[in-house]
Amino acid sequence: MLSISNRGNAMPASPIRKLVPYAEAAKKRGTKVYHLNIGQPDIETPKMVLDAVRNSDFKVLEYSHSAGNESYRRKLVDYYASVGIQVNHQQIIITTGGSEAIQFGFMACLDAGDEVIIPEPFYANYNGFAVAAGVKVVPVTSSIRNGFALPPIADFESKITARTKAIVICNPNNPTGYLYSKAEMEQLKELILKHNLYLFSDEAYREFCYEGEQTSAMHLTGVDDHVIIMDTISKRYSACGGRIGALVTKNQQVLDAVMKFAQARLSPPSFAQIAGEAAIDLPANYFDTTKAEYKKRRDLIIERLNKMEGVFCPNPGGAFYAIAELPIDDADQFCQWLLESFSHEQQTVMLAPATGFYGTPGLGKKEVRLAYVLNLEDINKAMDCLEVALKVYPGRTI
Amino acid sequence: MLSISNRGNAMPASPIRKLVPYAEAAKKRGTKVYHLNIGQPDIETPKMVLDAVRNSDFKVLEYSHSAGNESYRRKLVDYYASVGIQVNHQQIIITTGGSEAIQFGFMACLDAGDEVIIPEPFYANYNGFAVAAGVKVVPVTSSIRNGFALPPIADFESKITARTKAIVICNPNNPTGYLYSKAEMEQLKELILKHNLYLFSDEAYREFCYEGEQTSAMHLTGVDDHVIIMDTISKRYSACGGRIGALVTKNQQVLDAVMKFAQARLSPPSFAQIAGEAAIDLPANYFDTTKAEYKKRRDLIIERLNKMEGVFCPNPGGAFYAIAELPIDDADQFCQWLLESFSHEQQTVMLAPATGFYGTPGLGKKEVRLAYVLNLEDINKAMDCLEVALKVYPGRTI
Repeated sequence: MLSISNRGNAMPASPIRKLVPYAEAAKKRGTKVYHLNIGQPDIETPKMVLDAVRNSDFKVLEYSHSAGNESYRRKLVDYYASVGIQVNHQQIIITTGGSEAIQFGFMACLDAGDEVIIPEPFYANYNGFAVAAGVKVVPVTSSIRNGFALPPIADFESKITARTKAIVICNPNNPTGYLYSKAEMEQLKELILKHNLYLFSDEAYREFCYEGEQTSAMHLTGVDDHVIIMDTISKRYSACGGRIGALVTKNQQVLDAVMKFAQARLSPPSFAQIAGEAAIDLPANYFDTTKAEYKKRRDLIIERLNKMEGVFCPNPGGAFYAIAELPIDDADQFCQWLLESFSHEQQTVMLAPATGFYGTPGLGKKEVRLAYVLNLEDINKAMDCLEVALKVYPGRTI
Repeated sequence: MLSISNRGNAMPASPIRKLVPYAEAAKKRGTKVYHLNIGQPDIETPKMVLDAVRNSDFKVLEYSHSAGNESYRRKLVDYYASVGIQVNHQQIIITTGGSEAIQFGFMACLDAGDEVIIPEPFYANYNGFAVAAGVKVVPVTSSIRNGFALPPIADFESKITARTKAIVICNPNNPTGYLYSKAEMEQLKELILKHNLYLFSDEAYREFCYEGEQTSAMHLTGVDDHVIIMDTISKRYSACGGRIGALVTKNQQVLDAVMKFAQARLSPPSFAQIAGEAAIDLPANYFDTTKAEYKKRRDLIIERLNKMEGVFCPNPGGAFYAIAELPIDDADQFCQWLLESFSHEQQTVMLAPATGFYGTPGLGKKEVRLAYVLNLEDINKAMDCLEVALKVYPGRTI
């Protein structure tokens, strides 16, 4: 019978990309759209990283090792050591973006019907990879009132069943920007030890912490077999299109199983591995500059948001996202209206409704995610648009 | 509980790559190893294709559209038209290698427990993607005696159950090199129409046909909704490391479902999309040269093989593989022995045991796959090694 699979039907459409047709229509009408809806940084990819690819002189664009080039993995050992993570190159499997690291982790550790607990709001594509793997996402709700801190451990425990196999965190968090404290990470450690769970830790935004340092899941002691890091160069070096990430773990069984999935897809992209390897030679102050830029943007956007009447936005400690509560009836409608029916001086702003980041239906209806990936001037203009929009939106609640 | 998933355990290790440690040990002993075991061509990637990447001058390595760059997809429309396939750019989704096209097709069309029928021997990674998707591969055996022609349609029909959703073919075939005739393709058309099945057609080797032309699944009429093409630039332009492929179909429901999987992983690699797009501007005679080279290699390797006592190797019509029957007890043991215990003038040859390409246990034990991806001189030397080896192998049967 010719039909789409149940999982094909269940697969969620991207909540971030579904408004794209409205943005395209707005642009066709001559309206400038400020994109705060997607984590595509405007920061330039370091020239030396791109030049490494441009100056490459091989003659055959060959498959690499299924785990990625050994030279790259050996250099990554130094990178991880520089952030306090002690691993060897055989504990690193290069993946096609962080996306594939998540997929591989789910596929190798979880069967259809197994459950993973994820604090919500969470990165929407975890849902997609879970559907592909037949895995059930069980959300534990975090609250905008305390800045989306780790929910109480009792909330996690109340969700644990015989099918629970893993906790997934993103730290610093996309979409909330929350940076989990050392104490919270230690709480998670006790939880995974007590219930013998995997801890999948998405650390894509490791370097982007504005107050304090990130506590990596790999800084935790005594849980080597539990911890699987999902990593990527996408945000770190503004190299989203490279599609290079990594799965890092000390669990040899997991490495062996993941390698079989890695072999089936042959190898990660060769060009961008060259870029990733070159990035490790960036000067030590590279992140200082980028981080300082993001911090200025964060400070500006948070200040502007909280000055608007009825808006509440906690100050995120990391990544380059913030979730704001707006005085509106429905974030999905509001975000569509911004593109379809609003403009201020021929400009408008594109935001991501937060509903797509919650697993529990009905949550996040007054919340939007803002990615502060634009320069200060553009952020100011985008905030001007939002400020005016909130005064005239038909569904405003104040 | 910390454990590997059942699918992680069921995932097959690569049958091609499992002998790698023995090859590495041989090289360390100073033995030169001719690699006929893997489809990594030695043909140079066209310089203009690599130069397109080297001369690119963007500043931010951005995500592309989840379906791939529109400019690339529009150029692919011309490429497909040049091989008699009429599609528009919205019927093409760029994937991360042909591998991802297979994955997406399986995921979007098949549920866990569904069945796909594949003529064996078949490309081993179909097994891996099937395990990942929970799909059952049902083999229909083709025979070396008739050069691995399409098995009788009655054999397919005897395997069809209520769970059968698709037929998978690779044309020209990896690992057999067999080129399905127009008549065989028409038979398959009747089969998929009669039983309302998808036809997944892997056409990675489309250009490499040495006698006659390829009949694409998309040349068949009246089965637009049934046909899904899995494609890749890997072999076509000797660009395996780019990891760029495509899923092509006129079935809008399938396109919509596949797009959701594509969005979850964000985008295919940006660098290699530039390479893929440039490749479409290669001169029309590009394939003539490559094909002439492969044909010479095929002619040589087939001649050499069939001159060896007890060896039988049908003449493959396409791709760059051949399967030979050898006068040996066990192909797995023989291939390992070639690396571990044999050398001729300090040289040996690495072959792929055919057992890994069969779904039915016990088949292919006397067969090996040879990829003629080396130059004529190296092929001759590799055949010298094989010829001597067959005379002294302890498990020889003549």
